[in-house]
This record gives sequence, structure tokens and C-alpha cells, in this order.
Amino acid sequence: MIIGHGGNIYQIASKLGCAPSEIIDMSSNLNPLGAMPGLINFLRDSLAEITSLPEADSSGAVAAFADRYNIDPELVIAGNGTTQFIYSIPIALGTKKALILGPTYSDYADACKMHNADYTYLINEESKSFEPDINKIEENISGCDTIFICNPNNPTGALIPSSDLESLCRSHPDIFFIIDESYMPFVKSGEKISMIRLGLPNVIILNSMSKIFKIPGLRIGFLISSKNIIKKLDPFMLPWSVNSIAQAAVLYLMEKRDEVDAFIKKTRDFIETERKNFISRFENISSIKLFPSTTTFILARLYEDYKAEDICSYMSQHKILIRDCSNFKGLSDRFIRVSLKTRDINMMVADKLLSFLS
Amino acid sequence: MIIGHGGNIYQIASKLGCAPSEIIDMSSNLNPLGAMPGLINFLRDSLAEITSLPEADSSGAVAAFADRYNIDPELVIAGNGTTQFIYSIPIALGTKKALILGPTYSDYADACKMHNADYTYLINEESKSFEPDINKIEENISGCDTIFICNPNNPTGALIPSSDLESLCRSHPDIFFIIDESYMPFVKSGEKISMIRLGLPNVIILNSMSKIFKIPGLRIGFLISSKNIIKKLDPFMLPWSVNSIAQAAVLYLMEKRDEVDAFIKKTRDFIETERKNFISRFENISSIKLFPSTTTFILARLYEDYKAEDICSYMSQHKILIRDCSNFKGLSDRFIRVSLKTRDINMMVADKLLSFLS
Repeated sequence: MIIGHGGNIYQIASKLGCAPSEIIDMSSNLNPLGAMPGLINFLRDSLAEITSLPEADSSGAVAAFADRYNIDPELVIAGNGTTQFIYSIPIALGTKKALILGPTYSDYADACKMHNADYTYLINEESKSFEPDINKIEENISGCDTIFICNPNNPTGALIPSSDLESLCRSHPDIFFIIDESYMPFVKSGEKISMIRLGLPNVIILNSMSKIFKIPGLRIGFLISSKNIIKKLDPFMLPWSVNSIAQAAVLYLMEKRDEVDAFIKKTRDFIETERKNFISRFENISSIKLFPSTTTFILARLYEDYKAEDICSYMSQHKILIRDCSNFKGLSDRFIRVSLKTRDINMMVADKLLSFLS
Repeated sequence: MIIGHGGNIYQIASKLGCAPSEIIDMSSNLNPLGAMPGLINFLRDSLAEITSLPEADSSGAVAAFADRYNIDPELVIAGNGTTQFIYSIPIALGTKKALILGPTYSDYADACKMHNADYTYLINEESKSFEPDINKIEENISGCDTIFICNPNNPTGALIPSSDLESLCRSHPDIFFIIDESYMPFVKSGEKISMIRLGLPNVIILNSMSKIFKIPGLRIGFLISSKNIIKKLDPFMLPWSVNSIAQAAVLYLMEKRDEVDAFIKKTRDFIETERKNFISRFENISSIKLFPSTTTFILARLYEDYKAEDICSYMSQHKILIRDCSNFKGLSDRFIRVSLKTRDINMMVADKLLSFLS
């Protein structure tokens, strides 16, 4: 198992001798407004369900999800987080050579490594704020059978325009496109951009509940694809992958349609304002550049003598965890990622970063 | 995914138009005394932990488990139930040909199928109450690189004597032995029989919390092995496999050492009495034979015109779910498995079975 993701509040808490709950975790990309209202209480009342086996294939949760998105339940699989799918894809699709649009989440490469699939990174250009360049993708696509695209991308926050991505997928019907939409719910009108609506035969969409509903400890994610691809994946799915509480959470979230829509809208409005405020704090600072983002986290590059390791270490002394991005392929020891939290915390963290940088 | 295990209370409830909680589930092999006292309430209080990422490698839960069993934490992995391990073993060990001691739990064969590993079943003899015959195993072992042994075995309830199993493992150091001890906690002095205490280099032990603590919906299991085998398995382990609530449950259970020991002792005493009572009800009935069991479930064979399907269907009309064992390789449409519940229910179910059989 490869360790080195964000969110290790346990490690830093143990180092500082404090409780994990005292750590301000701006390294995990989670909804700054907290968990979906009412969900935790509902799950508390459902907890006795752990004394029975859950549905082996989560069919109730799958049906509820499919109904919500108006798709055929046979095109949907529920998993123990999207992680389970990422690591099953290379073996299920028989991936020989993958293209990974970077810099991005390392698990796509780790999944290829696990199953001895070759992969190459196509690193989007920093000078263009890491915006993907469709022409560059076209130039690098030949010889690949699978492409991993995180959209919007972690850690850059960049989003491929919907029409560009659609024509890319349509013009390469023999290539499998894995579109990880874990952060799409944070994007304005995300549902109109999501690839779910298109139902393309060569596309796999990964849908996460962890980030938008702030339930990463629950472990639940969905995969949406075509009949043909689902048939390839199914033999690699395990019974009882999704625990009872997670299945109960899905039923709750899919039923509370209006409340969920309102919560997502509120979240989007909130992070749009906070993102602007946060970025504006650093506008005239020569030692740091913040990249534009469409989602809840912001990538930043350090200049002069500043290194990610040093600033992360400084912040951790103040019980603030931000993401050192030096282990992202295509980035360097100059990059950090900050996930937005509530107004007060965002401003306090901006102050702390500024005081370190001046 | 292969469906067809026990425990599908959802299917039968939907068929009968009742709530799943109304079904008496004697098809799942769970502790008849219920969940470990205090656990559900503790987890209710811990539920807010789902709003943070769990430890990626469950290191806290692993350390607590290792401490409890007095073993090196580096020899332990926590997983999303033992299911995750069963399906990773053939690919991680590079299994070419497996021997499966049957009749047994179908997932060992399904795991081999998933990874294109050959396997053969060695079916223990019905005339010997399905007790494993070490000489027969020795005769069939050559050419195999991996052996799956469920001990005590599901669905037969038979247990290989500890010394026999130890010398078998020791005399074949080049063969990997997968010993699934999911039902060992129900066995009298189980801890003295468990292979965990031996630390053999070619043995993998699977340890389940689902059955003894009646928390199958939580999804938590452990694997214990040698440094060499752990090194082979580690690249196939996924981050965040174990949800936050399951990790919290492990910490609780490992800390409450005396309470857990008392609960296990009470469980063992209870099922010993109940097993005797239940089996004695059928002693002079020519149409059914109950096999001896060391654990919480009992395998039975039907004679005359009786078929598993018919008796299961009859029982389901009374909202009682028992296991039709016809899909176990090595059994037939004559076999059923009944898991013990509380005294009243056991006696009521015995009455119902007897009324069908006479």
C-alpha cells in the first residue's frame, strides 16, 4: 500500500501530543460546511443495522442512486469508496498502456503499477495554470488503451470544458476513458457538466460521496458506465464491499433530493465566495502564486527560498494541516494545496501563511 | 460477483412483503447472543468520526489487535472483512494451483477463478461426518502451491485437531496454507487451537470479527501471517479499506479485554448447550441426520423424499431463513445448515422442522 496522501491528522496529532480533533485539516478536500445536515443523526439511529449482513451487491443503494440520476441500475456499481474501482480497473479492462493526465491523484498510477500496466503521464503546463490542452492529449493518446482524467482535477482545480471532453471521448471509441468526478459536485452547474448524462459506451465515471457530503470515513463511492464495461468489471467486484451504514447513508441522501440539492447549492455559493476571498489575500505577494480553481481546494506555488516542506512544518506547529504537493508527479517541492474551510479559519490560515511568507 | 450466500433477509422480506427485521435469520452464522454488549452504543457516540478520513492502513486498529494477540503488528493487516483478503490471496501469492478442503465456503474457489488460478476440491467424506482426513490431504497435496482450509469448517462444523494441522503445515514449508478461522472464537478453548500462536512462515490466518461479535454489516477482518507473506500481500492492499466506525470498533473490542473474554466464554457455553438440545430433538427421526459441530451452526442431511429447497421454502413461509446448502460443491440438494439463535427460537425452529419432516 502506498501511503502519502493528505489527511493524516492522526500522525500530526500524535507528533504534537494533541487529539486528532484539535487539528485543522486543510489537507483533505472535504465540504467546508460539514456533513449533510441530518445525516449523522439518521445514521446513529440506523447503527443497529451492522448486526446483519448488508446486501452483498448493495442493490438497494444502487437502485436509489440510479433512480436519482435517471439511469439504468445495471450501469451502476457501489463500492468501498472509489478507491476500490480505481484499483480494479486495470485488471478488469486488461489495461496494457494508460495515459494519466497530470499532475494528479497518485492512485491511478498506483493501480496501474499493482497490475503491471504501463502508464505515462501527460503533465499539463504550469504556464497555462495546468489547464488541460486537448490538442496535447490528442498527440499523446496513440498506443494507449485507457486514459485517467480527474475532472475537475486534484490538486490543480482545473476543469476540462464539457464539450471538449465529450468530443475527445467520442473520437476515440476504442479507448477507455476513466473520468473521476469526485470533485464535480463542488463545481457550479456540475450536474450539467458531469459525463453521467451522456452514457457513452467507452467511459467510466467515478462518483464520490466522501467529499461533497463530508463522509470520507464511511467509504462509499459509485461507478457508472456502459453495459459492456460493467460486464468486464463485474467479475472483479467482491461481495459485501459496502458496509451497512454506508448503504443506509445512500438511501437517506438519495431520498432527500430537495434538501441535498439545496445543500449542494449552498456549498457551491459558499466556496465560490471563499475562494475569491482567499485568493485575493495573496494577490500582491511575490513569494506565492495561487492557481485558479473550480472546486473546493486551491493549488499554490512558492517562490524565492520557500519550500513546501518548511511551510507545512510551520503550519503544523499551529495545528494546521495543509498538503505538501512535492510527491505529485509533475509538481515539485514548491507546491502546496489548501482546502477551504469556514470563513474564520480560511482567514486565519491566510494570515498564518502570509506571516510565514513575509 | 457471485451471489448465493446465506443471509439474504432482504430478498425474502421483499417476497413476503414484510420488514427485513421480521425475518428470523438462521442462515447467517452469527453470535446468537447478539452484538458485544456496549459496542453499538459506543459506536453511536463515535459516529462523527466518519467526517474525517480513517487511517489509510488502519494502523491504530492493527496495533491494538497485535497487542491483544501478543504478535508483531507488522505481521497483521486489517481489511474490509476477510473477503478482501480471500480475493487478494491468489494474485498476491501467484497461486497456480490451489487445493480447497470441501465442502466449504465458496469464496475460496471464486477467488481462484477471479485470478485464473487452477483449483481442485478435496471433499471430506460424509460417512466420517466430513471430518478432514490428514492422510487424504497428504495424498492430494502434491502439485499444489496453496491450500484453503476453513477451520472450523463452514458448513460442516468440523475441526481439524490442532496438532494434525500444525504438523501438516510444518511438513510442507513450500506450500501456502490459508487457514480461515472465522468461526474459531465459537470453539471451546479456541485461542489454544488457533494457528495465530504458532507464527509459522507459510501460514496465513484469517480472523473475522463479524461472526463472534455479530457485526457483519461493519466489514472488518484481520489477516495474520509471516513477514515474507505480508510482503507479498502488501502491494495488493488498498488505502482506506476499513471504514472509521469499524476501526473504532476494533479499538473498543481490543481494549475491553476482560469483558470480551467473558462474552466469548458465555457464548461458547451457550452454544454448547443449545447445540446439544437442538441436535437431541432430531435423534430418532429417520428423515434427517444432524452432523456434529464444534461451532455455532449445524449441517443436516435430509432423507426420504425431502429436499433442501422444499424445507427452506416451507420455513420461509414462517419467516425463518435457513441455508439451502445445495450450491456447496460436494453437497447436494439434500443438505441444509441451521445457525443457532436464542433458546426459544431454536426450539420453535426445531418444532417447525419436525412438523415438516413428519
